[in-house]
Amino acid sequence: MSKQQLHIVKIGGNIINNSELLSSFLKDFSELKGLKILVHGGGKKATELANSIGLEPKMVNGRRITDEANLEIVTMVYAGLLNKNIVAELQQNNCNALGLSGTDANCILAHKRIVKDIDYGFAGDIDAVNTNAINVFLQNEIIPVFCAISHDKKGQLLNTNADTIASELAIGLSNLYDVSLVYTFEKNGVLLTIEDEDSVIEDIDSKKYETLKSDNIIADGMLPKMENCFHALSKGVSKVIIGNPTVISNQNQKFTTLTL
Amino acid sequence: MSKQQLHIVKIGGNIINNSELLSSFLKDFSELKGLKILVHGGGKKATELANSIGLEPKMVNGRRITDEANLEIVTMVYAGLLNKNIVAELQQNNCNALGLSGTDANCILAHKRIVKDIDYGFAGDIDAVNTNAINVFLQNEIIPVFCAISHDKKGQLLNTNADTIASELAIGLSNLYDVSLVYTFEKNGVLLTIEDEDSVIEDIDSKKYETLKSDNIIADGMLPKMENCFHALSKGVSKVIIGNPTVISNQNQKFTTLTL
Repeated sequence: MSKQQLHIVKIGGNIINNSELLSSFLKDFSELKGLKILVHGGGKKATELANSIGLEPKMVNGRRITDEANLEIVTMVYAGLLNKNIVAELQQNNCNALGLSGTDANCILAHKRIVKDIDYGFAGDIDAVNTNAINVFLQNEIIPVFCAISHDKKGQLLNTNADTIASELAIGLSNLYDVSLVYTFEKNGVLLTIEDEDSVIEDIDSKKYETLKSDNIIADGMLPKMENCFHALSKGVSKVIIGNPTVISNQNQKFTTLTL
Repeated sequence: MSKQQLHIVKIGGNIINNSELLSSFLKDFSELKGLKILVHGGGKKATELANSIGLEPKMVNGRRITDEANLEIVTMVYAGLLNKNIVAELQQNNCNALGLSGTDANCILAHKRIVKDIDYGFAGDIDAVNTNAINVFLQNEIIPVFCAISHDKKGQLLNTNADTIASELAIGLSNLYDVSLVYTFEKNGVLLTIEDEDSVIEDIDSKKYETLKSDNIIADGMLPKMENCFHALSKGVSKVIIGNPTVISNQNQKFTTLTL
């Protein structure tokens, strides 16, 4: 029997920070047919809250460190303020959303990142996804909405990269479902010319990816994102799409499809 | 066929504010056999956070008002910080907890309190409990853990009394289950002499309640709590218990049982 389709859609800070864009996206997401999961990033609210209580962001070599005080902040903002307001707006749109962090129903098990050169503090690297629990939700027409917090099952919450949460959910659930993973961001897709939103490269397979890398068209911040995508494809995810948030509703919107 | 037993346990600020007491309670709750739900109140953390960002508590006639800024605070603290840390600690104790606000899976539908003499702001009065969703969780060995936030299904989160959330959950679920509602607080039960923790009145029915009221033994802050309890009993809840948090594990702990 062929597997049921499942869409996993990740939205980032650019959309979280703009309530108009967010409302429009949540309406589109509510209307998306079939089984689906939403994963959301953080946005600037955590930094604003940290600033307002006089907490300095802790950085080492340009990387943000999650100390105990910052973990409290992200737990409040990601799992509380953002997650519950997103769920409330989806409920308003008749989408039966359920807000989740990785500790809820033990959905996402992680460990505190091992200290090598840098101690990232309470940052989580994912070990396992509890597909049983997520499957219970999906099969009962409940739509999981994940924030970027996981746990270690020893009582510790962990700040976790939202792109990685999306790809690990996609990989874990590809045993049960035919999974399409959709990464939305501020651009229309992977661009041939960074300034030209019309220059979307519509299809990239692993061979083309190597060429685009050696031609320096894909570089810098796009590299870890692309590696995440190809990792997901190599582990059973059917399709990965990168595009603007409107990609889930607008038939005419260009986007990039990645395949192995 | 007789209904399955379900325990709904409410803990308040006195235990939330004491991490040692809380850990001990969460261990006991994890070991409690059978179907169960936890409801937790707020504690002092919300006030601390409000103070640290320079937000003055808004009071009218001695009652706390939930304006927009304070709603953000309680959403962050109750649904984020407290709820997720409680769930993480239950998971550590092998209790498969799922943190919920009333907007998640549309579990608790409310409306913004009607303005009569006082505008309480974003305070919720409960209209309905979504027993279908909660039943899915219970029947899949997932333990719901509710914070005191509900929603109006029009996109608005609402600050809601935790005692009332517990009693409305108990009433709603008494159609499906044989529900025992356990209110824990800082005393050992309803006391005959307020200073004497050994003076627990072990059984109170509605007739005895009237006597205790007219004798001024039950007065002030205990009155709304007791009204909540008798309301629950009159709407199908099998049993209401009032006691110290250790009542769920300690066989020798005295407590008060209310019946109609």
